[in-house]
Amino acid sequence: MKKKTTIKDIANVLNISAAAVSKALHDDSRISDKTKKAVKQVAKNLNYQPNHLASALRSGKSNLVGVIVPRTNSNFFSSVIQNMEEVLNKAGYNIIITQSNESYKKECANIDTLLFTQVDGIIASMANETVDLSYYEKVKSKGIPLILFDRGENDLNVDYIGINDYNSSHMIVEHLVKQGCKRIAHIGGFKRTRIFNNRIRGYVDALEKYNLPQDPELLIESSLTTEDGREKMIELLALKNRPDAVYVAGDYAALGAFQVLNEQNIRMPEDIALVGFGNEAFTAMVSPTITSIEQHSSEIGQQAAKTFLKHVKKESFTQTLNKIILNAELIIRDSSKKQ
Amino acid sequence: MKKKTTIKDIANVLNISAAAVSKALHDDSRISDKTKKAVKQVAKNLNYQPNHLASALRSGKSNLVGVIVPRTNSNFFSSVIQNMEEVLNKAGYNIIITQSNESYKKECANIDTLLFTQVDGIIASMANETVDLSYYEKVKSKGIPLILFDRGENDLNVDYIGINDYNSSHMIVEHLVKQGCKRIAHIGGFKRTRIFNNRIRGYVDALEKYNLPQDPELLIESSLTTEDGREKMIELLALKNRPDAVYVAGDYAALGAFQVLNEQNIRMPEDIALVGFGNEAFTAMVSPTITSIEQHSSEIGQQAAKTFLKHVKKESFTQTLNKIILNAELIIRDSSKKQ
Repeated sequence: MKKKTTIKDIANVLNISAAAVSKALHDDSRISDKTKKAVKQVAKNLNYQPNHLASALRSGKSNLVGVIVPRTNSNFFSSVIQNMEEVLNKAGYNIIITQSNESYKKECANIDTLLFTQVDGIIASMANETVDLSYYEKVKSKGIPLILFDRGENDLNVDYIGINDYNSSHMIVEHLVKQGCKRIAHIGGFKRTRIFNNRIRGYVDALEKYNLPQDPELLIESSLTTEDGREKMIELLALKNRPDAVYVAGDYAALGAFQVLNEQNIRMPEDIALVGFGNEAFTAMVSPTITSIEQHSSEIGQQAAKTFLKHVKKESFTQTLNKIILNAELIIRDSSKKQ
Repeated sequence: MKKKTTIKDIANVLNISAAAVSKALHDDSRISDKTKKAVKQVAKNLNYQPNHLASALRSGKSNLVGVIVPRTNSNFFSSVIQNMEEVLNKAGYNIIITQSNESYKKECANIDTLLFTQVDGIIASMANETVDLSYYEKVKSKGIPLILFDRGENDLNVDYIGINDYNSSHMIVEHLVKQGCKRIAHIGGFKRTRIFNNRIRGYVDALEKYNLPQDPELLIESSLTTEDGREKMIELLALKNRPDAVYVAGDYAALGAFQVLNEQNIRMPEDIALVGFGNEAFTAMVSPTITSIEQHSSEIGQQAAKTFLKHVKKESFTQTLNKIILNAELIIRDSSKKQ
């Protein structure tokens, strides 16, 4: 790689100090016109490009917002980003996106990268693996606005925008009970992740509310990939006493479950009713269409951006926290609609 | 926003020069142990965080690769990024992603952002709108490795990784001819974008090869969004002499066409055979499944990363260009398979 021309290179050519070159380039009155002219000529000859980053270092402002998501190829995350970006662009900010692929190590590297690029704020949704919050604490301690969405963490005590996961599970169980389902299984996410924990609690409490027995073999933890959704569905089908409904905490895993049911000619919703979570576009494309939860990604993205902008406007960082919890919407489709 | 503590703040507290503070923090032998101790204590009290960016400015290396894609929520682009990222991570590089949303203005802002963040290289796929290449020329003139994939531009004379679009169209037309189709329409991308132009040329030449009449009303330019795919399909259905096959240059637009055909109870492939491009996951999920072109996104991502790494290893930037053109694969599914 060709080395970039630095102020030092110019200084070497003219046998003057780097500080003098810098002053000359900024038209400092302490430098003679003759030197200024010489410096500018050499800068031109060497194709010197003034470094915007250096000025960001001085001003402490980059007009960049860093985003961390588990992955970009999900309708939910890409829609959140899209909406966030529109609001931020209008306010003069650009965004840079990093993905954790659900890895804690990768998420830490992303935080380092974003801090390195001098972002004015970070908007993040945490990886499945993340338990240790010290990297996020580092962001906070630097006084950089940190806003979490969807996958947040109470202990961090930062702004958060998400949906009511607990209530969403209630809505789903209530819907399935109305369809006449009696053995409702839940392929849930990892309990240690707050949103998935809330979905599991909502499921358990709703079962109790509707006087349905809570069978431990019907509650399974999953990484919620399509592949894992397949495996967990196969496990459920191997049970002596099969469920008559399966609520999966993520649409990609629901798709895996859906594939297994189709392959084994198990009818949805007659034999097993299926409900996903996230309202990914494919849930409305497959046959039968899959009931799912709409998470209001556009609202989440806009609110996250607006929350960041609120921070920027304040002189001091001490203020009341924003905790925005949106109500989700159950989109009832063929996979669970018996009547 | 709380202002970050700078070296100058520490200098002010101790009434010494910023240069002395910097030297003290770097354990420079010219500074007394007493001053070093005082500087470090004040730095700690003020929660001073050394700036990694400053060291990147000095070394001219950030270990970051910037990525520009039209959008992240397509299987093709996200899979390219995923594979690119794996190779680059192993080599010690992190990536930051920006999206153009097919806007030229946004793409220019992205380039500025990436240059600002001192990336060591840029890997990009160009926006539909981009005609003026001066922003990309700027990247080249700075001596920063630039690698294009999928949506490239011959005039830029940089490394490029993509598939053989011209041949892909040939494969599609040949397949449709074998199914007995005689009036093959093409909903193509914008002619000014090289890959779409190549697909159009391939379509036209293949029609000639198979002695099919080339009817101008069967060749339509499109932005290739799902919405536009719908509109263009409706236009084709309004023709006095309807096509018996439609080849759409992108899967999202093919999905729009697919929806219209389903809504109007036009059977695929019996009434109209449908072929898309990109092998997006949904093409295998919908009913009927949609024939499409697999673009080898993983190979493209890996090759793009490897090409960047080749640049980094070379001392000089002058070298032969890499032009990697992969052969695509036609995945034949129900929407076009008559026999």
